[in-house]
Parts: sequence; C-alpha cells; structure tokens
Amino acid sequence: MTDLNLMRELATEGRTRILLLVLDGLGGLPMTPDGPTELEAAHTPNLDTLAARSICGMSMPVAPGVTPGSGPGHLSLFGYDPLRYEIGRGVLEALGIGFDLQPDDLAARGNFCTLDAQGLITDRRAGRIPTEVGARLCEKLRQIHLPGVDTFVEPVKEYRFVLVLRGEGLCDGLTETDPQQVGKPPLPVEPLRPEAAPAAKLLNRWMAEARGLLTDEHPANGCNLRGIAKDPGLPRMPEIYKLRCGAIATYPMYRGVARLAGMEVLPTGDTIEDEVETLRRHWADYDFFFFHVKKTDSRGEDGDFEGKMKVIEHFDALLPDILTLEPDVVIVTGDHSTPALWKAHSWHELPVLLWAKHIRPDGVARFGERPCMAGGLGHIHHTDLLPLAMAYAGRFAKFGA
Amino acid sequence: MTDLNLMRELATEGRTRILLLVLDGLGGLPMTPDGPTELEAAHTPNLDTLAARSICGMSMPVAPGVTPGSGPGHLSLFGYDPLRYEIGRGVLEALGIGFDLQPDDLAARGNFCTLDAQGLITDRRAGRIPTEVGARLCEKLRQIHLPGVDTFVEPVKEYRFVLVLRGEGLCDGLTETDPQQVGKPPLPVEPLRPEAAPAAKLLNRWMAEARGLLTDEHPANGCNLRGIAKDPGLPRMPEIYKLRCGAIATYPMYRGVARLAGMEVLPTGDTIEDEVETLRRHWADYDFFFFHVKKTDSRGEDGDFEGKMKVIEHFDALLPDILTLEPDVVIVTGDHSTPALWKAHSWHELPVLLWAKHIRPDGVARFGERPCMAGGLGHIHHTDLLPLAMAYAGRFAKFGA
Repeated sequence: MTDLNLMRELATEGRTRILLLVLDGLGGLPMTPDGPTELEAAHTPNLDTLAARSICGMSMPVAPGVTPGSGPGHLSLFGYDPLRYEIGRGVLEALGIGFDLQPDDLAARGNFCTLDAQGLITDRRAGRIPTEVGARLCEKLRQIHLPGVDTFVEPVKEYRFVLVLRGEGLCDGLTETDPQQVGKPPLPVEPLRPEAAPAAKLLNRWMAEARGLLTDEHPANGCNLRGIAKDPGLPRMPEIYKLRCGAIATYPMYRGVARLAGMEVLPTGDTIEDEVETLRRHWADYDFFFFHVKKTDSRGEDGDFEGKMKVIEHFDALLPDILTLEPDVVIVTGDHSTPALWKAHSWHELPVLLWAKHIRPDGVARFGERPCMAGGLGHIHHTDLLPLAMAYAGRFAKFGA
Repeated sequence: MTDLNLMRELATEGRTRILLLVLDGLGGLPMTPDGPTELEAAHTPNLDTLAARSICGMSMPVAPGVTPGSGPGHLSLFGYDPLRYEIGRGVLEALGIGFDLQPDDLAARGNFCTLDAQGLITDRRAGRIPTEVGARLCEKLRQIHLPGVDTFVEPVKEYRFVLVLRGEGLCDGLTETDPQQVGKPPLPVEPLRPEAAPAAKLLNRWMAEARGLLTDEHPANGCNLRGIAKDPGLPRMPEIYKLRCGAIATYPMYRGVARLAGMEVLPTGDTIEDEVETLRRHWADYDFFFFHVKKTDSRGEDGDFEGKMKVIEHFDALLPDILTLEPDVVIVTGDHSTPALWKAHSWHELPVLLWAKHIRPDGVARFGERPCMAGGLGHIHHTDLLPLAMAYAGRFAKFGA
C-alpha cells in the first residue's frame, strides 16, 4: 500500500504531464456467461489502439470483495488508502450537492423519519417523501439558530438532507442519532472525545428544536443525523507529489473529492466535449489532470447495458482529440465497476491501461476485462497507479543509494 | 510482506542447498516499441531450458514506481522489507569502498564543496574535482584527531569521501550538514535524540577542524557530511532461516550488503568464471549462496544494449557448469532493472525463474520479460523469493496444526 511519506520523499518537480482518465463505473459483467462486458461489447478502436501501445492490467479499488462508494473509489485512484483515509458521510453528502464546505465545517447527513406518539421511530425514511417535501422541510429547519455558529440545511433527495455547522472550535468525533432500527427514539449525539462536547451540545439543541418544528408534519415529523464529520484534512496531492493538479468533472461529488485531495477544480460544462475543451484550455496550467466521465456509471446503475456501451463509445471517439495534447503518461480506468447486470456498484477489478513513451509491451491488443487480465501490470491496486504514473513521467527520484 | 518472525518460526535445519543467482540490473526495456529487451534479445539456450523446467514470474523490488538503489534492491532479495530496513547512505558508501565497517562505527558520506569568503556554499560538489585531488585532501583530513574515538577518512570518487568514527557510545540519529542548496553555509550536525548528542559534538568539532585545514584549497575549501549512520543491525539470515549463507560478489558494495545480512563473504576474483570457481570450492560449506553478477548493470548504466546482452550470454554459457553442482533450488533474477535505453536503474519488475525438482509447470519456455509476465508465479515481490526457496528446499515447517 502506498506510503505517502515515501511518495513525498521521491517526488521531484518537472514539466511532464500525467492524464488520469476515469470512466466512472467502467468495469462490467457479461449479461450471459459467454457474452461480452459493456466495455468488450463497445466499438472502441481508439482505446484498443492505445491499449496495444500501453501496459495493461486489472486494478483493485479497495480490497477483494469490497464494493466502494464514489468516495473510496476516487481516493484510491488519487493514491490514498481508502481504508486509512475515510471521508465522513456528512462530508461526502455535502460535496455531492456542491455545498462549498470549509475545512472547519461540521457536516451531517440528515434523514427525515416518522415518529409515533411516544417519540419512537416507526419509519426511518419517512415513507420516502418526495424531494419537494424534503426541500420545504429544510426551509423550515433553517429557522433554527444556534449560539455562535452558522447553520445550513440543504435538501438532497427525498428524505435526505445535509446539515452543516460553521463556527469556531467545532470538533468531530461524534455519535449518530439514528438507532438503525424502528421502535427506538433518535439517540442523543455523544462526544467520542472531550473536545467534541461543545459540538454535541449544539447538535442536541438543534435536534430538539427540529423536533418541535416538525411536530405537526406527517409523515416526516422527526429526523436523524448520521456521519457527522469534518473535511478529513487529507495530505494534499500538490504537496505530496509536487504536481499542479487540475480536476475536470461534471458532477459535484467528484469535484468535491478532488478538492479534498488538493486539486484545483476547473469550471466545465455538462458534456464530455465540454470537458475535453476545458482540458485543452488549461493544458499549460497543470501537470496532473483528473478527467472524470460520469455517465458510464449512471447507465450501469440504470441497468442499461447498451447505454453504458454508448457512453464508452462516445468517450472513445473523443480520445484522439485528447491525445493530440501529447500527455507524457495516460491512464484509463474507472473508480469501481458498475455492471449493468446488477444496476449497482461492484467490487470487481477494473481494466486499466497505462501509456507512456517507453513501456514494456505486453501483447494486449484490446481494452477490455478479459484481455487486461493477461496484461503486463498484472493485478494491481488503484493506489499503485499514481506512483507508476509518477515514475513513467520521470518524476520520482531513486530510493536509497 | 515477509514477516521475519514467521520465517524464524518455520525455518528448519537441513542439508538442502539454495542458489540465488543475481544478475544486477537484469530487467530491461525494448529500444523500439516492438523490439526485444536485452534479456529477450540475448541468446540464452541454458536459461531458456532452465526456465522451461522452472516456475517463472515477475518480481517487484520495492513498490510500484519505486526505483531502488543497490542497497534496497538487495535487501529485498535477502528477504528484508527495504522500506522498513534502510541502510544509511554513509554505511552504503563505506561498504562500497570495501571499508571494514564495525557494528558500532558511525559512517558519513562526505562531499567536498566550495565556500565563498562568507562561508556560504557556491558549489556543492567543488567543481567535481579529480579523484586524485580528493584523495590528497582526505590525506590532509586524516590529521584531525578527536578525543576518545578513531577517525578514518577514505576517498571515494571525485568530490566524495567517507568519514568513519569508531569508539564507544557513538549513537546515530543525526542531521546532515548539507543544506542542499548553494548560498547557505554548511549546517551544524544536530542530534535527533539525546543519546546522539556526544556524536554530534564530535562531528561538529571535526567539521570545524576540516574547515581550517581546507581553507587554502581551491575549489575544495569546504566539505559536508551526509547520511550519518550506523550498521542498521539487521536480523541475520543464518539466525532467521537456519541457513549457512555464503556470498560471492566481485564488487565491495554487494559484499558489504551481504555481510550486513549475516552472510560470510567468500574471497573471489574479478570474472564470472572466478565466481563459479569460488562457488564450486565452497559448495560443501554453505546451504545458501548469493551469487552476484555485476556487469549486466554496468552495461545497462552505459546505455550499452549489446554489451548487456553479451554479459547475459556470458553468464548463460556458464550456467550448465553451475548446475552440475546440483543445487536443490535455483533462483535467477536481478536486484532491479537497468534498461540500457535509460542508462539508469528503473522500477520495473524483474523476470524471475525458480527451479526445484518438483515445481508446477507453467508453460513458460523462454527466460524474458514478456514470457515471464505469463508465468505461474504471477507478479510477486522480491521479499517473497527467499520464503519460496526455503519451502522448495524443504526447509519450512508447516504453519499451524
């Protein structure tokens, strides 16, 4: 597993450029035992040509059998062991809606719920109320003012919202209120360390006031707070790797995770074409680019095998344009697998290609799960990719005399 | 990663023999995308025959993208995690010139430098003075006597030298004097722990006297000390593995690292033939042999693809002779890659073959980077090789009941 102190010690300044192309949820499964995966079924002449000139392999996002969410999948690609560097659920949720989270903000994921007359939870998701209802309830909860801190209540989707506390001395290390079962009341927030006691007190006061404001609502007459967390304060990529890092992504979540890693997030449009244009415009300004394609994952989650194929083909058609920028190192992979067959993320390894001017050829001539299993990189870990890219970019000094 | 306590627990006495054949810098790269590597281009009928009867694979010296120096590359082959067991630069430098370093000696790598009238460094390498000048200056510095310790000043090459302090109570944990940039003066040696304070005091006194002795020299009117270190006190191979270990190497550096690992270093000549003769003469005396071929790395560092091929072919021609000794386990690999294309060490995995009487055949019929990528060992780590050899030599007990 990557030792960030070692990375810091080896990294050198340079003018070479690394391009990390992430097709979200790229990995797939065949719909029938002998069939192709989404990537194998897609017509990808440009990826295939690049694969033939690259060293290929299979890359593990977290650990065997462990299905990552978007946070861990990307942390891993950015070189952070996701089992060591966790991003709290509240923070991820805030990033996911594009909330401009500050380093000292305390963020919680909120769930509206249904309480009975005794205050016991009867439905942890308040009957999955429509998003508009959730938004109206958030509006109501914004009336709560806590002494010495600003509060933000932002709707997410259905029964979900984000609560952010902003102020001095808010420490994390706090328990959740959700008892994770019906028939129990929401629990008080408890501090897990003495410094977190003031924040616990504020959150419990907020919960009490929220209960008062929601009392006449139905079915969402209560709420819970989960994953109360702060920006994990990751060591930042520019400081570890001496890279100027730019991120190009169309969805807030990925921009947010990139920002936590210390990347500068570049404004871009909604399409892959927009992202390529952004890459071109900023090509001179950075030496590492994280380029994120979202829709492969979206179509996988929809169970839309053909749709996922089409997104891959769309990306493939734009690849030659991207390569005219002449990066020194190109990596193509995904953060995790999202097989259309399962309509969900999965733990499966991802096909990966690494192109650089001088690689050891491995005979892999097509980009797909089966061909990459025989690739020269073998079975590696997402956290190995950035160190390999650094080495191929000539940005690592020798270790030891 | 190898757990030395586990190794110690499993190792048993025996009469079987393990032969570790290390071709320094063996791994290479093709000069053109479709071309062969040095090893693939070489005519190696004997290695190929052996590979066909062996289990093959690719072996990682340290970590993905991490290019090892000679120290870490060999430590790893000897079963020590090189990220955990580091050999200080001063120690490696002393070993490299064949200095008979004692366990309690404190060794520093010295660099002559140029100072201006204010004592600020203007050239960290003193214009790369000729080796003869460096030797004369070392002679001069031998006049310095420190209370209670012996000092040794030995020239290395050009502006480099080794300073060794020998005496009671010399602790390491000391900062370097080299500020790593021009326009600054040499820094005082600072102790990083209280026990190192006496050594720091002695070294600062030595630095002050050295400055006085060098003051009229030009351009080498100053010096710096780097990597001030002691023998890392590695757990010794004979004690961990219950192996009587002999080392055969023509260069001081490799003999030195082998000695740190607890091997007995056998006197030998300059050629591979001499080394084979040494191996034959001592065959009955040891049950593990480290056999080192240096020139593959030298030709790689020269950028001499053909020359590196020829060294491999030379070794190949001697292999049948070696095998007549009937070792029980043979490993052939390198400490790290040194592609002639790059004229430098690289991080790339090494092809490896492991021969023993009963192995699982894997269909690899040639010894080379591409064939070994498909080998039955898969992608392993240098530190895995010794445990595998122990197992194939019947020298490991069962783990657990």
